[in-house]
Amino acid sequence: MAVSLQATEDFLHAEIPLVRAMGVRIVRYDDQGVLLAAPLEPNRNYRGTAFAGSLATLVTLAGWTLTHLQMREMGLEGEIAASQSRIDYLKPVTNATIAAFCPIPAADAVARLQRMLLRRGMGRWELHVSIRADGEVAVDFTGKYAVTVLSTETKLDA
Amino acid sequence: MAVSLQATEDFLHAEIPLVRAMGVRIVRYDDQGVLLAAPLEPNRNYRGTAFAGSLATLVTLAGWTLTHLQMREMGLEGEIAASQSRIDYLKPVTNATIAAFCPIPAADAVARLQRMLLRRGMGRWELHVSIRADGEVAVDFTGKYAVTVLSTETKLDA
Repeated sequence: MAVSLQATEDFLHAEIPLVRAMGVRIVRYDDQGVLLAAPLEPNRNYRGTAFAGSLATLVTLAGWTLTHLQMREMGLEGEIAASQSRIDYLKPVTNATIAAFCPIPAADAVARLQRMLLRRGMGRWELHVSIRADGEVAVDFTGKYAVTVLSTETKLDA
Repeated sequence: MAVSLQATEDFLHAEIPLVRAMGVRIVRYDDQGVLLAAPLEPNRNYRGTAFAGSLATLVTLAGWTLTHLQMREMGLEGEIAASQSRIDYLKPVTNATIAAFCPIPAADAVARLQRMLLRRGMGRWELHVSIRADGEVAVDFTGKYAVTVLSTETKLDA
């Protein structure tokens, strides 16, 4: 894939102080989805488990990142904003590394977003993100993201 | 009110690195509710508006803080955990200070939580938190919190 994960991670660290404070990394992006991770230590609460605010931030950011990377593959740049979220905190996260995975939606959902963006310059979609602990889903997130296209580049990945 | 806001704020700063990084303060707690605030600068995104992760963290923490302070008034200490949340991000937050207000629920809801905690040692309730910008609600949060009583103190505030 032509999109640079490091450039995206560097951008987030440079531009969003909280992402830097949390130590978020973009671990992997492939045809399955994107995996973000953050160490527990700067993201712990007073019980030594992951702080709900850090969990909410990591899942929300995972959805933003997947949308950003998918748009780059479409040759588009734009503003991406979370518009709605629902989170179930199912069990405490005690992993030394907190990992949030956002799968790429089904091909028809990707095609629908791309059509909206190319035709109207804006669109929205819904993403799911999960954080697992001890082999089970610990945090379950559903979020809606609104996208506005700012520029259309030559599509390098086509 | 006999509960110390400063002690609660100091505890959160000492025990939760992200709260310290965000510069969260407990501004006010009265018979209406609790008001938390954080400066925009450490909580901005790349557009210079408030980062969704910071907004999610601040509203989630406001509900935690209200629950904690209400329990102190009941003479109880316990573990409080967010179990579910729903957030609508309605407009960008550009205020130099981001303020989240969590109203105290109706008297019957407070009495019901207190009854559950005293009888069963655990309980849950739902809280609403909002962040306003330019006189309008910009972030609307509904969250469920689960509480487990750890100790019962002499009720100083009765």
